[in-house]
Amino acid sequence: MYLDKAFELVKWTDGQTGSNPAVGCIVVKDNRIVGIGAHLTEGEAHAEVNALNMAGRHAIGATLYCTLEPCSHFGKTPPCTQKIIDSGIKRVVYAVQDKSLHSGIDAMKAHGIVVDQLYISEIDDYYQPFFKAKLRKLPYTILKMGVTLDGKTADDDDVSKWITNEASRNHAHCVRYTSDAILVGYNTYKHDQPTLDSRNYRDKWIRKVVISNGLFEINDKDNNDYDKSRLIVVTTTDQSIDGVTIIVLTDLHPETILEALYLHKINRIIIEGGMQTMRAFVSARTFDEIHQYIAPKILGGSSKHQFLTTDQPSQMSEITDLSLVSVKTFDQDVLLIYRKDDVDVYRHH
Amino acid sequence: MYLDKAFELVKWTDGQTGSNPAVGCIVVKDNRIVGIGAHLTEGEAHAEVNALNMAGRHAIGATLYCTLEPCSHFGKTPPCTQKIIDSGIKRVVYAVQDKSLHSGIDAMKAHGIVVDQLYISEIDDYYQPFFKAKLRKLPYTILKMGVTLDGKTADDDDVSKWITNEASRNHAHCVRYTSDAILVGYNTYKHDQPTLDSRNYRDKWIRKVVISNGLFEINDKDNNDYDKSRLIVVTTTDQSIDGVTIIVLTDLHPETILEALYLHKINRIIIEGGMQTMRAFVSARTFDEIHQYIAPKILGGSSKHQFLTTDQPSQMSEITDLSLVSVKTFDQDVLLIYRKDDVDVYRHH
Repeated sequence: MYLDKAFELVKWTDGQTGSNPAVGCIVVKDNRIVGIGAHLTEGEAHAEVNALNMAGRHAIGATLYCTLEPCSHFGKTPPCTQKIIDSGIKRVVYAVQDKSLHSGIDAMKAHGIVVDQLYISEIDDYYQPFFKAKLRKLPYTILKMGVTLDGKTADDDDVSKWITNEASRNHAHCVRYTSDAILVGYNTYKHDQPTLDSRNYRDKWIRKVVISNGLFEINDKDNNDYDKSRLIVVTTTDQSIDGVTIIVLTDLHPETILEALYLHKINRIIIEGGMQTMRAFVSARTFDEIHQYIAPKILGGSSKHQFLTTDQPSQMSEITDLSLVSVKTFDQDVLLIYRKDDVDVYRHH
Repeated sequence: MYLDKAFELVKWTDGQTGSNPAVGCIVVKDNRIVGIGAHLTEGEAHAEVNALNMAGRHAIGATLYCTLEPCSHFGKTPPCTQKIIDSGIKRVVYAVQDKSLHSGIDAMKAHGIVVDQLYISEIDDYYQPFFKAKLRKLPYTILKMGVTLDGKTADDDDVSKWITNEASRNHAHCVRYTSDAILVGYNTYKHDQPTLDSRNYRDKWIRKVVISNGLFEINDKDNNDYDKSRLIVVTTTDQSIDGVTIIVLTDLHPETILEALYLHKINRIIIEGGMQTMRAFVSARTFDEIHQYIAPKILGGSSKHQFLTTDQPSQMSEITDLSLVSVKTFDQDVLLIYRKDDVDVYRHH
């Protein structure tokens, strides 16, 4: 019950904690909530610390409920386990073990604190992308597309606006908010001049990654300090643009790109187009999820903007196996979310 | 409450009443069910008659609940309204008005019977295809396809088997059972040799319609009396095959085909492929519903088996508007059902 409340805090703060996971914490004594805390900003107090500060002397003999196992290491802030020990907490209940850190459980137990795991699969699901990125040192990667019932992402005149409805777009902005970066190919960047932000949900400084084979030319729209600071250009051509992050690589294989982006603190990324970029990531199998918004429309025409047409002939044996993890409707649109079955490790090139 | 039970009987018998709608009927007296009836077979007793026969003398002073307004005409059986009047029923409650027949309500009222409509939208939805076919004199038409996440109905080697899973195929057989015919193009008929039956649900003698431009050649599989009796070949080439229904038309426009099939007592039809046939029906806008089963697979390759590629370039303004009416999941497959907004009248050529 208290863990559900702690998880509620996680949902409120999802997307605002940078490369840290969102964490929620509730301190309870004599059936009363005496402390509520969440991790709000990377580099600032963790959830446990905020909750224990609120609890003050009421923490003595209390139980601390936390969505994720408390940390035991000196990072940007001191370890939470020490704060818990010092506060007089009697029992700690956590939902999910933090596989990316050394456990602080033994230290707490050595100080007489009872430590219990109460596993909740919904919370575990939430932390999977965080663990995957951290253990693999590659961002958790979502391919997002809006398609018609006949699988078109744009018409033959390259018009892609208004395929999906407003409710779908608003939801897509929520997903963007929980990510660190949105990636598009250079053609899409030049042609659509997309803003790639999360303003329909909550605005946020989010990275805008553009894959560019040759010389990158900035859009008029982005020619300001704020948007320049968001831009990361991944390219094979050495170049520099004032205020813009340029990553020069020897090749533009999707995994090479993702490795480089992880080093720029991108733990979660959404690939949004165009189709050439999308196809490269699908073919290389370098993705974790596919988010397909399906609009109740039929476009016909050619397969120019078809997801997914490749140069190789298809064969039934070459099917990629995916798991359907979620079906949502937004008015007349449907969102299908698939997760790649071998999501733990990308195939190495 | 009693109408829900009557509708339950409708669901049990859906698909076994030929060109008549399935109807359920419950007779109630002093809060006890004294009669239960359904229309079971075209040309045999209607639901009301079966229920009143079961009720016998208990019908006197009782209330009759019926999913559809009782009929007042001499068709293959005498009118139900007369039987109701003769039985001593005091009150009739029906859910949906039968727009295709003359009303018998006044006749019942003239005999002192109280007649009430208790509208239930779920029951009304159920009867829509029946009314549409009858008023329009064209079968209610469903386009059914199984696609991968990238919209392929087969791979580039023309292998289409096992795109969707067993649960999806079982459901598709239920839908087939509620239809009168399944239509495919001649290429699909020759290449896939599909059985086009409903054996995974309940087997039924269901029409197998093949569109054939030139001379039709029967598959070995169908070369028996039973399967020949199921076959309807729609063609522009005058020909005859012993035991097979041949419809010769001047053109193979989808609406011309449907008009002819309606005259052969086909009120509900499923178009199952191949893509050329599907494209013709979509382009002519001669369909009522699209059933798209989406499998969690990606095929890539060419757009050879892509739904829907047309010869004309697409433009955003040419979008067909559809309404999403149902989202179902079958294990990892998703079924999306769309209804055409202008479903009442096909566009005339």
